[in-house]
Amino acid sequence: MQKNNTKNFKKENKGASKFAGKQANKPAKKHNQFSNRKKKNGPSANGSKQGKKSSPVKIAFLGGLNEIGKNMTVYEYNNEMIIVDCGLSFPDQDMFGVDLVIPDFDYVERNAQKIKGIFITHGHEDHIGGLAYLLKKVRIPVYSTKLTIGLIEGKLREHNLLNSVQLNVAAPGDVIDLGEFKVELIHVNHSIPDALAFAIRCREGVIIQTGDFKIDSTPIDGEMIDLARLSQLGKEGVMCLLSDSTNAERPGFTESEKKVGESFETLFRKAGNRRILVATFASNIHRVQQIINVAKALKRKVALFGRSLENVVAIASELGYLDIPDNVMIKSDLINKFAPEELVIITTGSQGEPMSALSRMAFSDHRKVEICPNDYVIISATPIPGNEKTVSKVVNELMKLGAEVVYEKMYDVHVSGHACQEELKIMLGIVNPKFFVPVHGEQKHLQKHAMLAESVGVDKKNIFIADNGNVIEITKDTLKQGASVPADKVLVDGYGVGDIGNVVLKDRKHLAEDGIIIISAVIDYESGELITGPEVVTRGFIYSKNSEEIIDGAKNAAAKAIYNCCDHNIVDLNAIKGKTRDAVLRYVYDKTKRSPIVLPMIMEV
Amino acid sequence: MQKNNTKNFKKENKGASKFAGKQANKPAKKHNQFSNRKKKNGPSANGSKQGKKSSPVKIAFLGGLNEIGKNMTVYEYNNEMIIVDCGLSFPDQDMFGVDLVIPDFDYVERNAQKIKGIFITHGHEDHIGGLAYLLKKVRIPVYSTKLTIGLIEGKLREHNLLNSVQLNVAAPGDVIDLGEFKVELIHVNHSIPDALAFAIRCREGVIIQTGDFKIDSTPIDGEMIDLARLSQLGKEGVMCLLSDSTNAERPGFTESEKKVGESFETLFRKAGNRRILVATFASNIHRVQQIINVAKALKRKVALFGRSLENVVAIASELGYLDIPDNVMIKSDLINKFAPEELVIITTGSQGEPMSALSRMAFSDHRKVEICPNDYVIISATPIPGNEKTVSKVVNELMKLGAEVVYEKMYDVHVSGHACQEELKIMLGIVNPKFFVPVHGEQKHLQKHAMLAESVGVDKKNIFIADNGNVIEITKDTLKQGASVPADKVLVDGYGVGDIGNVVLKDRKHLAEDGIIIISAVIDYESGELITGPEVVTRGFIYSKNSEEIIDGAKNAAAKAIYNCCDHNIVDLNAIKGKTRDAVLRYVYDKTKRSPIVLPMIMEV
Repeated sequence: MQKNNTKNFKKENKGASKFAGKQANKPAKKHNQFSNRKKKNGPSANGSKQGKKSSPVKIAFLGGLNEIGKNMTVYEYNNEMIIVDCGLSFPDQDMFGVDLVIPDFDYVERNAQKIKGIFITHGHEDHIGGLAYLLKKVRIPVYSTKLTIGLIEGKLREHNLLNSVQLNVAAPGDVIDLGEFKVELIHVNHSIPDALAFAIRCREGVIIQTGDFKIDSTPIDGEMIDLARLSQLGKEGVMCLLSDSTNAERPGFTESEKKVGESFETLFRKAGNRRILVATFASNIHRVQQIINVAKALKRKVALFGRSLENVVAIASELGYLDIPDNVMIKSDLINKFAPEELVIITTGSQGEPMSALSRMAFSDHRKVEICPNDYVIISATPIPGNEKTVSKVVNELMKLGAEVVYEKMYDVHVSGHACQEELKIMLGIVNPKFFVPVHGEQKHLQKHAMLAESVGVDKKNIFIADNGNVIEITKDTLKQGASVPADKVLVDGYGVGDIGNVVLKDRKHLAEDGIIIISAVIDYESGELITGPEVVTRGFIYSKNSEEIIDGAKNAAAKAIYNCCDHNIVDLNAIKGKTRDAVLRYVYDKTKRSPIVLPMIMEV
Repeated sequence: MQKNNTKNFKKENKGASKFAGKQANKPAKKHNQFSNRKKKNGPSANGSKQGKKSSPVKIAFLGGLNEIGKNMTVYEYNNEMIIVDCGLSFPDQDMFGVDLVIPDFDYVERNAQKIKGIFITHGHEDHIGGLAYLLKKVRIPVYSTKLTIGLIEGKLREHNLLNSVQLNVAAPGDVIDLGEFKVELIHVNHSIPDALAFAIRCREGVIIQTGDFKIDSTPIDGEMIDLARLSQLGKEGVMCLLSDSTNAERPGFTESEKKVGESFETLFRKAGNRRILVATFASNIHRVQQIINVAKALKRKVALFGRSLENVVAIASELGYLDIPDNVMIKSDLINKFAPEELVIITTGSQGEPMSALSRMAFSDHRKVEICPNDYVIISATPIPGNEKTVSKVVNELMKLGAEVVYEKMYDVHVSGHACQEELKIMLGIVNPKFFVPVHGEQKHLQKHAMLAESVGVDKKNIFIADNGNVIEITKDTLKQGASVPADKVLVDGYGVGDIGNVVLKDRKHLAEDGIIIISAVIDYESGELITGPEVVTRGFIYSKNSEEIIDGAKNAAAKAIYNCCDHNIVDLNAIKGKTRDAVLRYVYDKTKRSPIVLPMIMEV
């Protein structure tokens, strides 16, 4: 069996490039470039390890399960490790003040010596957003396609990491050989160009991780997902499939990105001589390309608004992912030099983000763009769950200013980047895996995806619904659960990574609900008598100017408590503080039915 | 014209009851009962006022526009006023700590002498939730149908208002005559029984306010919306229509409530011998009736969980709106005496509300119900915008416990209570109003509804999209905007009504984002020298135990600032506090990139 496997591997790699571990690991001044032509039949580490004893592949899930976000998976075989993706997630609304959430890197740090490389499926935040934080702790070579590496470069520059990390550009069809693991890059369709699935091969067998994908037979860049290669791998035998569950609840097929282009054409014509604004995700290069194409055809100029959009468009055009005709783009400063019917504005803010360009335009708070009844606004996105209200607010405000607003419910101005049920079934059917682990989704998505797998013939006992922190151990014939690893949420707030935990969040929630009352007083160290105060200051509790009675009442309650302590010879400062707090809390609750944090700052002199 | 109008009015009222103002206004020991039989051809105040000079009807919108919630409309004619509805809305997620939001009653209080009565369309919170707060300030007789009055009674009891308010029960077909205004009650379909539209008549003409409605030709209680009466009024001439815009974005027709019953039957059978749990809105009596019917047919017992549900079911059965067969209902304590296949549990929590029964079951935190793989859960509701994530969380947790969960996207387990576009067009078509004001909706709903009106032939210049606080003045031939009235949001937090404003909310937001640092110190009154402290206490800023360096740094920054003041002979306490705050803020921002509230509590002795 061992032998067969190795044989298979060799066969599969025909025509694909192979790179020895040392090649990939040597420090790079610029990107390492992998191309089939240059490096064909390079040295492979595979042969030398044939003699080693077989063992199961361990897969540790550090993120992306029971959540949409912070995807991160660690593979281990024979004491060597690779990682797929390192994303972030955005905070829930009860994570007050938290900027972003990243995976717990404890397991990776403890195994730093074993890790050969990290492979990135595509350039979305939930797949690359945690990378800079990881690379600050552990230096690992990074492998992905050109655009993804370009976007990662931008992030690493912000974190001052650019010169200390090895970034390796590879292309679909390439096989990166890092020792025990050989990782083949397979092209898939998604809402950002250059997205990948990985075929991860070790002596035990092949595991396919799809990354985020859809099946688009008329993609904008002409490159359809490589179903042929996936089918071929399936025929040769795939041990395990990890597949994208985002749209597992949705029946049917996801429409082609091209559909949106057709809608743009219809809608741009309908706009007549009004100014057109289109809001979309900055990273959806194909969407931007289609807007530019239609604008060009209708003789309109295009201006970009929003930092992330300008940034991504700059990288994508530099790397050749955007085909921008001459004399179409104009600087955002120049829009007032053109008539409304000569303009298309592309902007960020399709999720109603409060600080985004579109949101500021809607609330008449944008320096350069003033919305008026002569504007035709297209929101080319669906609200991500949780953003429905913010998007509605922006739509409402734009409409109040007189603009006509086209949003997703009404016209085909957005398509998903993720496979729906029929596509997921095709993936399961052609890969035909022995074991199946649905990933990238909440519990409901994972369970639906598991049911789909069953419906196409995967044995129920070979389907494993995992959770973050779970480890599974797979051989050709068995899948079992191993000992779990830490996979908590790590919260980032400002410069602080992980210094906000449950205690701080609980306090923030309490402060947000009912505010704080601070009682300050000075007492005599020996007698316990009140020397100065008590003074009462509140924040977020009540509007003090109209509530003097309550503030005075709280002050009296505090004074009474302190006097009482003195009368009863209670001199322990903590005891005095405790009694003061209780007295004030009781008083304000009776009066207001609110329970603010009460903080007695009592000092002794 | 004046004469014609009066003539019309008389004709329309044939066969409907009329009540003089004094009748309706006399204090009621129990409900006043209006019924067609008893009071036919009662005295009318109409005749006596024929001679008065005509004037426009003024309509003031105190809530329900540019929002879904806190509906309240005030009508004025010839110095007499009536009110339609008095609802609440639930706080936006940035209104930290706010329990609920009610309309501004300033305009009503200033005109208290003119107000003859308040008419309630139906018993949902966004139509009755503000009533208790209003009636504390102004005593006004309340008019509605039996169930609505029953639900209002419960609320007034909680607020200790029951004995001081006059509640009047009337029935569809009744006309309440309060002087200048004659209000006719018209039956409509909605997701709560006994819902009404009002035909509000004064000498200038007839205004129809639909309340929330749908057109259900197979309603559970057999009573279809009274399209005949609405058509008749339309034929006789309606001056203005105010109509429900909630579903103005949705094409087609809203399905009949009966559809849900059919789904229940299919799904209950599919549940086999598993226990069935159905989560729905407490107030949807018809839904509860259908669940009970299907349970009875399949020989299952029904138990209720959730206080609001038990409450509404008690009122509805007492008043005859629920037909509960013998030996079907069981006490919630007894569920463990029955086998799973003998049980249906109806529960609150269909919106994922964190404290609801279903949510507590999902998070294994319910005293009586433990979810297990033998549970079949039906969520018979759609998430209200903004609740998508909380509902998803509950679904995910139930699924983690092994339950099968059926939620709205997948099966017909919920239908809306509001009219879709085709129904709205029917309403517009049969009422055929001169003027049209879309109400009950955000801007996008109001604008879509206005477009629908145009599409069925209402003159564009006769359509008015209003905002809260707007006043319109209507005559038979003209609609113009009058001077606005106050219509702010009034926030309720605990016992406090309106004592939370922008300052407090801004502080709560700031506290939630970054927490608070309190610096306490005692200085010598004369020398300005530090006697005790500074001490630093933080809440919601950083996890202090692991951040001693930053806490110490903040302490040093404060001490340095105070010493500095002393050295430079700065003795003004406010100046010292200001410099201390600035120094600490600068230090912590540099270290953490966070900007907490910094509060120096410096005292002099």
